[in-house]
Amino acid sequence: MRRFNGHDPGLQQLRWRSDAVPVATVRPGELFEVDVPDSSSGQLSLSSDRRALERLDLDRVDAAVGPFAVEGAVPGDAVVVHLEGVDTADWGWSGVFRDFGLLRGRFDDDLVLWRRDGAAMVPVSGPLRPVPIPQRPMVGWLGVAPSSGDLGMIAPQVHGGNLDNRLHAPGASITLPVQRDGALLLVGDVHAAQGDGEVCGTGIEVPARLRLRVELRPRGAPRTVRARSPGLPAASGPYVVTEGVGADPRAAATTAVEEMIRVFGEHGVDEVEAYLLLSLAGDLRLSEVVDEPHWVVSMLFEEALLERTAATPRRPSR
Amino acid sequence: MRRFNGHDPGLQQLRWRSDAVPVATVRPGELFEVDVPDSSSGQLSLSSDRRALERLDLDRVDAAVGPFAVEGAVPGDAVVVHLEGVDTADWGWSGVFRDFGLLRGRFDDDLVLWRRDGAAMVPVSGPLRPVPIPQRPMVGWLGVAPSSGDLGMIAPQVHGGNLDNRLHAPGASITLPVQRDGALLLVGDVHAAQGDGEVCGTGIEVPARLRLRVELRPRGAPRTVRARSPGLPAASGPYVVTEGVGADPRAAATTAVEEMIRVFGEHGVDEVEAYLLLSLAGDLRLSEVVDEPHWVVSMLFEEALLERTAATPRRPSR
Repeated sequence: MRRFNGHDPGLQQLRWRSDAVPVATVRPGELFEVDVPDSSSGQLSLSSDRRALERLDLDRVDAAVGPFAVEGAVPGDAVVVHLEGVDTADWGWSGVFRDFGLLRGRFDDDLVLWRRDGAAMVPVSGPLRPVPIPQRPMVGWLGVAPSSGDLGMIAPQVHGGNLDNRLHAPGASITLPVQRDGALLLVGDVHAAQGDGEVCGTGIEVPARLRLRVELRPRGAPRTVRARSPGLPAASGPYVVTEGVGADPRAAATTAVEEMIRVFGEHGVDEVEAYLLLSLAGDLRLSEVVDEPHWVVSMLFEEALLERTAATPRRPSR
Repeated sequence: MRRFNGHDPGLQQLRWRSDAVPVATVRPGELFEVDVPDSSSGQLSLSSDRRALERLDLDRVDAAVGPFAVEGAVPGDAVVVHLEGVDTADWGWSGVFRDFGLLRGRFDDDLVLWRRDGAAMVPVSGPLRPVPIPQRPMVGWLGVAPSSGDLGMIAPQVHGGNLDNRLHAPGASITLPVQRDGALLLVGDVHAAQGDGEVCGTGIEVPARLRLRVELRPRGAPRTVRARSPGLPAASGPYVVTEGVGADPRAAATTAVEEMIRVFGEHGVDEVEAYLLLSLAGDLRLSEVVDEPHWVVSMLFEEALLERTAATPRRPSR
């Protein structure tokens, strides 16, 4: 089985280019492994602190590894990426950014570092108390090249990219519409945990080793990304729910998140801790989109995890 | 235990008025029952056909039962409505409306009638083949009166109303911010099943008997609706997923639904059947809301239910 070392900057792409030179050609059906860096592209580590976040080179964020040409792929085909395995590193980070995330402008930059403990990740520094978060790995970045020109790495597209969809978990198969000869698959940005919405802008960002198999479906291009996802991760009820209501989905989502932060506050959990936890383990749902002119956006959070958080003492002050 | 017969038009409200006269006053802690009509307010029955849908008096749709004054409630308080029981009737209906729903303009009006069979509902007439849908009852309409004036019944508000949130299931507790003395609680619009989003505009609309208990939390008004919901209904993976990507959440949701209808088509399921099934058992999630400028909206559908649908023969033509 071939393995590609995506920690090598030579295998990382900082723009999403139609004319990128493939690092390798993979055959449909071939199982191969790709080591991918965390979404800081190796700029952060367990020895980083908040100042490292301020020094972060944003042009190097969300680098993806590849591209891998898929033998025989032409525009109009579909490439199906089977996530046969996702092995995450034993450390990770989460960031709050003043200028990024659903509540941007409300929080200062801050950094949480995590270590793995069994099947969970535990914060070891930063503004979050040491509450264990169950690992539910997923692949954030997964896409084929655009038909022409180049794109930034942050915004996802109908042909994939930085979809940050927690349904893209081990065992999932993601179907992407090929835009140019060879497809030019890029992958990266693994999260050890992330909720629907990723509201603060990060999950638990980790380096990882991916085991991938690519399938080619001639003339099978869907109009937008499709996936087959295994059962959802095992978060279980009861849930605490806050419901944003209004004509503007962004405002409704914001209200749901703000109100859930207030719920956490009533349990003695700080705002920044709540914001981080909602990004890692809270889920945004579109509960209702037809009762004109108002949509209902729900934020769900597992009640038991909220209670475990409230019961976990803060670390001595930093 | 008091029981209120909401099939009596005298107990139904067709506008959401601040100055409505209460039909009764309930005490915090009191358990009481309310019979509520289906959302057509009794205009449809098992003997209805598509023409009945065209004759539907829309001013009588989504009537809610009450209002119930809550003893002692004043503005700034919270009323918590505990859904102690939801017993649904053994029949129901679902509608597709040309001028309502996420894909309005695409389908003609059509009507599906349902009968209960064990723990499932089964279509007995209309454009949907007889595939059983597991019952997952929920209360669609649940709100307190506005502070002044009156509102229509369709659009939900931060003080509740037609939230159509499937998390409002038996065992859930919904917290509403009181806007005027006595709160003036209204309830109605029960669905035997509905997905997140309710994309075609209806669930399986049923008459029901609600067993309710109201709790008063002085000065506890949240800014918007909150809930505590029991574990989510038992839909299980694997899921088929389609992902709308773009800056406009409505367009992204529409793309996700349209593309899932295409997936159903590839399994031999008609477009109108798919649209109905997505409304009853498909879920819209906000997978990603931070990777500017694009959101990712996922439509999820249980793969096994899609396969059961595809394997169920159509009824002889109507």
